[in-house]
Amino acid sequence: MKVAISIGDSNGIGLEILLKNHKRISKLCTPLYCVEKELLQEAARMLQIKLPKHLKCIAPNAKIPPIMPAKITKESGAYSYASFLSALNLTLQGKAKAFVTLPIHKKAWQLAGIPYVGHTEALRDLLKMKQKQAIMVLGSPKLYVALFTDHIPLQSVPQSIQVQSLKSFLLHFAPYVTKTPCGVLGLNPHAGDFGVLGKEEEAITQAINKANQTLKKQVFIGPLVPDTAFVGKHLRYYVAMYHDQGLIPLKTLYFKESINLTLNLPVIRTSVDHGTAFDIAYQNKADSTSYLNAVKEAVFRAKK
Amino acid sequence: MKVAISIGDSNGIGLEILLKNHKRISKLCTPLYCVEKELLQEAARMLQIKLPKHLKCIAPNAKIPPIMPAKITKESGAYSYASFLSALNLTLQGKAKAFVTLPIHKKAWQLAGIPYVGHTEALRDLLKMKQKQAIMVLGSPKLYVALFTDHIPLQSVPQSIQVQSLKSFLLHFAPYVTKTPCGVLGLNPHAGDFGVLGKEEEAITQAINKANQTLKKQVFIGPLVPDTAFVGKHLRYYVAMYHDQGLIPLKTLYFKESINLTLNLPVIRTSVDHGTAFDIAYQNKADSTSYLNAVKEAVFRAKK
Repeated sequence: MKVAISIGDSNGIGLEILLKNHKRISKLCTPLYCVEKELLQEAARMLQIKLPKHLKCIAPNAKIPPIMPAKITKESGAYSYASFLSALNLTLQGKAKAFVTLPIHKKAWQLAGIPYVGHTEALRDLLKMKQKQAIMVLGSPKLYVALFTDHIPLQSVPQSIQVQSLKSFLLHFAPYVTKTPCGVLGLNPHAGDFGVLGKEEEAITQAINKANQTLKKQVFIGPLVPDTAFVGKHLRYYVAMYHDQGLIPLKTLYFKESINLTLNLPVIRTSVDHGTAFDIAYQNKADSTSYLNAVKEAVFRAKK
Repeated sequence: MKVAISIGDSNGIGLEILLKNHKRISKLCTPLYCVEKELLQEAARMLQIKLPKHLKCIAPNAKIPPIMPAKITKESGAYSYASFLSALNLTLQGKAKAFVTLPIHKKAWQLAGIPYVGHTEALRDLLKMKQKQAIMVLGSPKLYVALFTDHIPLQSVPQSIQVQSLKSFLLHFAPYVTKTPCGVLGLNPHAGDFGVLGKEEEAITQAINKANQTLKKQVFIGPLVPDTAFVGKHLRYYVAMYHDQGLIPLKTLYFKESINLTLNLPVIRTSVDHGTAFDIAYQNKADSTSYLNAVKEAVFRAKK
């Protein structure tokens, strides 16, 4: 299976991770690297490692940037965006079954005039997805958390909890739940404590019931009490009502392993769940766990 | 050092925990049990364990309830409240340096006509504390989380984040922070991401700065990004803006060990952080970790 890989920002840890794991991920898939081989050669030289053999490289449509470790540059921003577009297009054209993105630098994209704050926003726009359709999921193989609301102020969360939109979210997410039941978290302390600490759990309960009725089985349970939902032997899948409700337990338990996937897109895309880590760029210190999991996840989802 | 112990609901796991740990906690303090010895004898008989020697018992002002495992009864409610009052009064009178509460059953208190939903609410009222003054802290010896807002709907949290009241909270909490710095969490995803995802972090920043200025040292740092604040080697003390922000990571990491303490009261009180566990009452299955930590914490805070 061919999987396209976009390199992320060439001044961060992306190329180190890519080079050092070529052999390992080649056992899982045939990686198509969206980068000129010349840039990989230069990165290998700077890291004082050997360039792996049998690299399949596809040149993105941008000028090769000079590598300047930990620097935010227009050139690296433009190139990382071109690499991302190239990976996306290979997948849309069916030349790859899925793609994996390495971390870009938000400010470098800004400097290069790219009008998106990140991959997910770019995908939503380029693929003409409505906000609610692209489902942001973070996870490790042991724990996946889908975010019903993601990058919005906490203040706007309660009003977003509506029966129809939550039911629709659950129905879009259900096909990706490979182990049931999926726990749906409440919004309030103690999941509202029978309405004493908030009322949104009524809408959550209704959305769960309606989604299960449509699916004709109990895929979703809840609303679960948020502060005990992750204790001990937890479930594999959760739906969180807001960003930190899902990401605090995920990162607290599985920080290194964690990956990012956007579901319900016309393509399969996974990503590492860390940034460019400029503080350790080109120091041979990067951890590869999240990248390996992102590749495994892409292969797993593409096979289904 | 004398520490008063209230027994909680006699139909739950409280008496099992009390009896089985008498020897261990007697090495830390002199426990004063707010219960008639007769009730302990009956509990020991039902658990088929020997009644420990040298028990100092002080009779609460209520009729001894019959033990009915896992039953919600008016009698156990009235007795657990009387035991709590007795422990509180011993501490107020200086006959004990601190007190530790075992779990009561909310509904049993209700049946007995006790007008409080729990210990903390009862303490606030009986000691005539204003809401903001009694600081609810949950913790294990490795991680303490103070809740700036606690049992309120999530919807009401953002409007509660005000510079003056947060500053005042931080100043009340500062004397209890035995290891600095104490991390103050942001409210929004990515701690607001420079205002893009919410503005409350401005007030949090100001409150932190003002509190540190008054204290003439950097006791507090933040606002921290909530979803990475507990990753890896975390700090010992945190202030959370809302209930689940603090309790999700605490319970996910240290569920069994976790205790509850109410700070800034005229008395020192700690509590286990679990309920009556009726499902395993009188089955010799209760875990004592939280109780032992609660006693240790009471002794530690009383010595300071």
